[in-house]
Amino acid sequence: MADGKLGTNIGGNIGAGAGILAKRFQKSMNRAQEKVLQKLGKTMETKDEQFEECSANLNKQQTDGIRLYKDVKAYYNAVKVMHESSKRLSQTLKDIYEPDWHGVEDLTVIMESEDLLWNDYEEKLNDQVVRTMENYTAQFQDVKERVAKRGRKLVDYDSTRHHLEALQSAKKRDDAKVNKAEEEFNKAQEVFEDINKELREELPVLYQSRISCYVTMFQNISNLRDVFYKEMSMLNHNIYNMMKKLEDQHSTKPFIVKGLNS
Amino acid sequence: MADGKLGTNIGGNIGAGAGILAKRFQKSMNRAQEKVLQKLGKTMETKDEQFEECSANLNKQQTDGIRLYKDVKAYYNAVKVMHESSKRLSQTLKDIYEPDWHGVEDLTVIMESEDLLWNDYEEKLNDQVVRTMENYTAQFQDVKERVAKRGRKLVDYDSTRHHLEALQSAKKRDDAKVNKAEEEFNKAQEVFEDINKELREELPVLYQSRISCYVTMFQNISNLRDVFYKEMSMLNHNIYNMMKKLEDQHSTKPFIVKGLNS
Repeated sequence: MADGKLGTNIGGNIGAGAGILAKRFQKSMNRAQEKVLQKLGKTMETKDEQFEECSANLNKQQTDGIRLYKDVKAYYNAVKVMHESSKRLSQTLKDIYEPDWHGVEDLTVIMESEDLLWNDYEEKLNDQVVRTMENYTAQFQDVKERVAKRGRKLVDYDSTRHHLEALQSAKKRDDAKVNKAEEEFNKAQEVFEDINKELREELPVLYQSRISCYVTMFQNISNLRDVFYKEMSMLNHNIYNMMKKLEDQHSTKPFIVKGLNS
Repeated sequence: MADGKLGTNIGGNIGAGAGILAKRFQKSMNRAQEKVLQKLGKTMETKDEQFEECSANLNKQQTDGIRLYKDVKAYYNAVKVMHESSKRLSQTLKDIYEPDWHGVEDLTVIMESEDLLWNDYEEKLNDQVVRTMENYTAQFQDVKERVAKRGRKLVDYDSTRHHLEALQSAKKRDDAKVNKAEEEFNKAQEVFEDINKELREELPVLYQSRISCYVTMFQNISNLRDVFYKEMSMLNHNIYNMMKKLEDQHSTKPFIVKGLNS
């Protein structure tokens, strides 16, 4: 390989930096060449069907996770909008409620309780649902980078193997070159197999975790809504009763809008 | 008044149209002149304190009504957004739910019921709350126009009265002119008093109706929410149970996000 020569042309730190760059360049040149040969059918690409399945699952899992994350985020935002409009409506009722109207003393208590309930709901939705999904989807970035690295190591492995095979089947065999190529092949094989084994163990576990993630998330949403609906129902009854007091005070007849009930 | 002369200068339909225009112009000239004299303190403006109070109440009532209408409209829109985001979340769950996962048969039923419940809630909110407020606030336009008309008739009344007083106290009294002015004054008084009486009767009734409007509206909101929370709670439990089935099938452990529970 040419990196040794390039590296020694420039001395000191700059030389070391340039050496690393040259090495990287050489690596990607070798990989590109190997991919071209594989595409042309000149060399064989190593296939790991079990890994391919894991990788396809990972892609699906990530797509589903991101979609779900977007949905819970939108759901959370909708809850905030609902809170805001609900609060504004109560505030208007408070502002137009006249001091001598019955039930005015209940209104402030109801409004404060409503606000607390909404805040609690929002906060827990954020903690138990939005952040859960955020952390779940955040894992994929790192895993996908390692899958990409495995891909590069696989190309190196194939490349060194084909290089070795070429040298072994050469008419004029050069044992020193063959030995060096064998060494490089063994090293590339070890690196690839290590990362491949790691991912083949990790990916199914990660894939399986989607079920517990979905279960946890939807059970959390369900629990939070349950508490919210129950407590809101009580405040809702309080509003009804407050309006009943006002109605009794003024003994008003049911409100009829002209032209609708005639 | 000069309108008769102006009117006869032009014949036919055009003349009639021009006559009406000229009459209107003369009327507004007379009113403007009267307002200027009142402002300068040269003449007295008739004040009806009871009516002034009714009118102030009407303005407040309209402002409050419009504010409440905007709020319920925003509330209704927020409910629609909440429905949409809730539906999307359920749809995603349905799409990512695998065919061999337990509980899949419940999901479609839950989703359809959820959608029906949201639609029912939205429709009734629109009918019983948004449209109620819409019809309530729509009344004010007509009433405000009649209050403005009363204002113009009041100026006419004052103007004819001052005109009559001026003629009566003139050094050289012209009985024919005084009689005509008296006739005009009596007519203006009758017109003004009719509309004033009408409004003094109607405005307090309209003002009182705000209470029954608020009572009806907030009781409707409360009732609709009550039904919605109760029925949604049941569907919510169904989702929880469905997730329980899935959990049991895969006997998954609680979902732990890395770095949060360590």
